[in-house]
Amino acid sequence: MPAEIDFYFDFSSPYGYLASARIEDIAKRHNRTVHWRPFLLGVAFKITGAPLLAETPIKGDYAKRDFARTARLFGVPFKMPEQFPFAPIAASRAVYWLADRDPNLVGRFVKAAYHAAFGEGRNITAAESVADIVARLGIDRMEVMSALVDPQVKDRLRVEVDDAIKKGAFGSPYIIVDGEPFWGCDRLEQVDRWLTSGGW
Amino acid sequence: MPAEIDFYFDFSSPYGYLASARIEDIAKRHNRTVHWRPFLLGVAFKITGAPLLAETPIKGDYAKRDFARTARLFGVPFKMPEQFPFAPIAASRAVYWLADRDPNLVGRFVKAAYHAAFGEGRNITAAESVADIVARLGIDRMEVMSALVDPQVKDRLRVEVDDAIKKGAFGSPYIIVDGEPFWGCDRLEQVDRWLTSGGW
Repeated sequence: MPAEIDFYFDFSSPYGYLASARIEDIAKRHNRTVHWRPFLLGVAFKITGAPLLAETPIKGDYAKRDFARTARLFGVPFKMPEQFPFAPIAASRAVYWLADRDPNLVGRFVKAAYHAAFGEGRNITAAESVADIVARLGIDRMEVMSALVDPQVKDRLRVEVDDAIKKGAFGSPYIIVDGEPFWGCDRLEQVDRWLTSGGW
Repeated sequence: MPAEIDFYFDFSSPYGYLASARIEDIAKRHNRTVHWRPFLLGVAFKITGAPLLAETPIKGDYAKRDFARTARLFGVPFKMPEQFPFAPIAASRAVYWLADRDPNLVGRFVKAAYHAAFGEGRNITAAESVADIVARLGIDRMEVMSALVDPQVKDRLRVEVDDAIKKGAFGSPYIIVDGEPFWGCDRLEQVDRWLTSGGW
């Protein structure tokens, strides 16, 4: 079985959202599957010293323009959440919990949560908001609510974040294809090409 | 006459080098010309708080890999200079001096200096190195050497750097097409598309 494509992302990353709209199509073309791996950019930024993009003078204004322009180019809906950046912890925990409980729902949840945040500009920080999204996939809402505060689920996210950073993830999306890392939604064409040719 | 394409860049920027290898072809396809506008990222970084890319933990290693990988994709020679980052002041002064003295040589000089730095990995910090490159374009070497320390030439660069930052340049390359800014050598296809369609 060909290796999965590791898709590291932060739920509060607009570029992660934009890439999430395309990565599965790319994977399918090459008979690959996507391994959705949310992590926390805030933890990575403490190591790299990167300031928060949208809050950076000059660069932040460009970034907001580029988010919307790239969304139009990709043909995906885009609306900046009023609260930005926001805490992506609950949504990230939900992914790893779902991965064990019902792996087939993971991709659907990631896309639904990202769509809520950046397609509709809704606030997905609260556990309640995340539980609503999971519930629409047919899982009992109370079960999700208790999972999101389960110490084992919390620990799982911590382990996954540490692992993501060990793998080199410092931005979102950070995509690893057969050991080769690609950072940014502007590297999707290179990802596609790498999957075709195995390198260049 | 259609507006020029403003190509803001820092001579010590590998992505600026990579974009410089393609921007003229893109401009020509749309009957445009390139306005070469070197500036100093160090000045911009003081405002944005950006750390130096290649020196950033984790991200720096990725960047070095991405420089070389993008160069292979673009089919341009690439060799990291031993001293990196390096001071791009002399080369930048030379551009603005040439722009007044012999504007037709500007593009040739930019490409020759960039090629020396990142195609051959040579150190172009010293005025002597820059003068050698200009001299190969048929200009008297001593004339260049004195221009590079001329207070008027020095002032000119300062004014241009301030202007670049006022225009929003915070990274390299930073390309403005009919008022629309594009940052990065990974935005060249968008630049091409924008020139075709006037937006999207």
